[in-house]
Amino acid sequence: MTLEATITELCSRTRQAAKPLARAGRETRTKILHTLASVIESGQHEILEANAKDLAYGQSNGLSAAMMDRLKLDDARLAALAASVRDIAEINDPVGEVADSWTRPNGLEIQRLRLPLGVIMMIYESRPNVTIDAAALCIRSGNATILRGGTEAQFTNRVLASCVGKALSEHDLPAEAVSLVPIQDREAIDHLLNQSEYIDLVIPRGGEGLIRRVVAKSRIPVIQHYKGVCHVFVDKEADLDIAHAIAINAKTQRPGVCNALETLLIHQDIASTFLPLLYETLQHKSVEVRGCERVLSVLPSVKTASEEDWDTEFLDLILAIRVVDDLDAAIEHIDRHGSSHTASIVTKNKAHASEFLNSVEASCVMVNASTRFNDGGELGLGAEMGISTTRIHAFGPMGVESLTSLKYAVIGEGQIRR
Amino acid sequence: MTLEATITELCSRTRQAAKPLARAGRETRTKILHTLASVIESGQHEILEANAKDLAYGQSNGLSAAMMDRLKLDDARLAALAASVRDIAEINDPVGEVADSWTRPNGLEIQRLRLPLGVIMMIYESRPNVTIDAAALCIRSGNATILRGGTEAQFTNRVLASCVGKALSEHDLPAEAVSLVPIQDREAIDHLLNQSEYIDLVIPRGGEGLIRRVVAKSRIPVIQHYKGVCHVFVDKEADLDIAHAIAINAKTQRPGVCNALETLLIHQDIASTFLPLLYETLQHKSVEVRGCERVLSVLPSVKTASEEDWDTEFLDLILAIRVVDDLDAAIEHIDRHGSSHTASIVTKNKAHASEFLNSVEASCVMVNASTRFNDGGELGLGAEMGISTTRIHAFGPMGVESLTSLKYAVIGEGQIRR
Repeated sequence: MTLEATITELCSRTRQAAKPLARAGRETRTKILHTLASVIESGQHEILEANAKDLAYGQSNGLSAAMMDRLKLDDARLAALAASVRDIAEINDPVGEVADSWTRPNGLEIQRLRLPLGVIMMIYESRPNVTIDAAALCIRSGNATILRGGTEAQFTNRVLASCVGKALSEHDLPAEAVSLVPIQDREAIDHLLNQSEYIDLVIPRGGEGLIRRVVAKSRIPVIQHYKGVCHVFVDKEADLDIAHAIAINAKTQRPGVCNALETLLIHQDIASTFLPLLYETLQHKSVEVRGCERVLSVLPSVKTASEEDWDTEFLDLILAIRVVDDLDAAIEHIDRHGSSHTASIVTKNKAHASEFLNSVEASCVMVNASTRFNDGGELGLGAEMGISTTRIHAFGPMGVESLTSLKYAVIGEGQIRR
Repeated sequence: MTLEATITELCSRTRQAAKPLARAGRETRTKILHTLASVIESGQHEILEANAKDLAYGQSNGLSAAMMDRLKLDDARLAALAASVRDIAEINDPVGEVADSWTRPNGLEIQRLRLPLGVIMMIYESRPNVTIDAAALCIRSGNATILRGGTEAQFTNRVLASCVGKALSEHDLPAEAVSLVPIQDREAIDHLLNQSEYIDLVIPRGGEGLIRRVVAKSRIPVIQHYKGVCHVFVDKEADLDIAHAIAINAKTQRPGVCNALETLLIHQDIASTFLPLLYETLQHKSVEVRGCERVLSVLPSVKTASEEDWDTEFLDLILAIRVVDDLDAAIEHIDRHGSSHTASIVTKNKAHASEFLNSVEASCVMVNASTRFNDGGELGLGAEMGISTTRIHAFGPMGVESLTSLKYAVIGEGQIRR
């Protein structure tokens, strides 16, 4: 069989398995997830053995320490993985939910009912826990899944996917409802991205290069999770203690993630008061500051920010700081340089807060809160499939609801159209 | 300037005009729409003159009578167009709406706020009223629009687009917020479909060929409005008077539209009672019937349906009829042959109704109602941009809400993440 035919068959089988899963009912899907958690626990030995193979392969291929760390599973990480599956089992199953309803003058009752999207394909790199998280979120929302993980995690992913298959089979559902693509060949991805007949949505998770390649090749809608160039604006009417706490938390609590602060904007009227206080803590936390000219006039020892710095997701202990004239200038800067991810204003002025919330076009806009809260768990969605930075279908953290669609249901008593 | 550069510039200008329109506020957008209705009325002479040019051109190029009819504007149609703009002016403006809100244990208040998608491109054929309807719905929802109409309506579309430009300018908004592509060259479409930097969503309206071409070429998400192979299933517990009225209405009230009935499924237990009654009316209404073998055993004079007929959108006075074993067989038939558009069950049995509503994966599922109600206006959405038959972003009639997205707003009092 050619590579293309193999891929087409895999996708077609997953599509066939989507309906039984969608129709299995909430209780069954909950049971599958609890079984999956147990299967992961009882399969610990086998999973860690496979993971050791991937780690050895990674070592001999010179994977970076950071990559090796993301790849590595151990007892604690596996326990956390099983626990996260149990958490997902407790999330409200959205399938069949009546999202909204109304009655028409002719007596027709209109409802909007949630249904799964169908088949969702994940294309991702290194972290093998994505295999389980994605499968669990898709099962919770009644979607079949095609998983295409990275070569570096292939042995681990295979064992994890077989855990999912076991959990499905134990509840009389086809194991193909969650299919791992067993072919690491890059060409396989091109064929997968052509299967618009069988796949409804593609979610790539990984670096910008991966996402751009997928968007360029795909004949299937793609949810794009681009970088997070996140902003905090300290207004002139800010509580400076709050501003200080938020800036430090957003930059330093976990600098390597997409909702970490990258550029701090400060109203000109408070720059000379606020900057020295903040800078002391930043230095204490080993944060490198890159400032505009007006920052340098207050803090002469600071490095000058380049034009490029305003567009950069540092993912590191580096902070760009710019002094701006006013709220409008802050919004304009975020418009130009932000990546539609997260922006927060620190202010006591309600009109300014409201103007900021309404005008800034980011997936999450905030008042007096750390950008680190733009996260599915923190916002109360239970878990997330990533954060979408484009506005089609889903914007911001994608919980189970964003893995569904709404159909119209019309209940009549024989109405016909005149 | 090259064609590509011209297109890029047009798209970039429209993108720049999107923000002022989004931020203009509801009242301003309502005023623009009322002005547009008046401009159409006062421009009647000029519009009809341009339309006459298109009609003459169509005549000499041998356009079909149906195409000529769709192209043609007259006093009554223009009055209806102005009236539809005034209707859209009265639809609730969705921008800034709080769709949902909740509070987290740490006191953070979470809201979901509606925002426009940005720039929407319509690619459409013949009917020049799409120019106005699409522009009006996009203005209502705060979106800028790029319009690419068919060559056959180019003179009419130009005058209509200039009416929109006038209405925008009168309220100090850039006329470029609604841009008609003045180049009829097909290559222009290819360049347009590459402008993912400036365009957020593409909505093609027209035949299946047009939609498939757009999907194949586009680097921008596309909302797909495919054909409507719509079904009615008459259950054994149906009220046969209601079943009769719905079948006749769905098939004959306006056979040339996408929500018209194409295949009627009848439970085997009532076939011999129901079919002769129905057939009499169908004959009276000049409807050609194509039946399965079991239909022919009741109505021997009926033509045999081919395998292809079950997948065909006749858009004509032709009805395929199949006798099925039971509800499951009906659902299975719709799964296999339906186009995810509309399906209705006629039954008095509530469990059957509920099973049908939950299991059938169509954009609109109905109980005891004519398929002709799957329409934005009839469902209470005010107006529609077409009916999406795929589940990503929008499914079913697209009202103004489907031209928006939701962003998260987080309101805190200095919360930071631990």
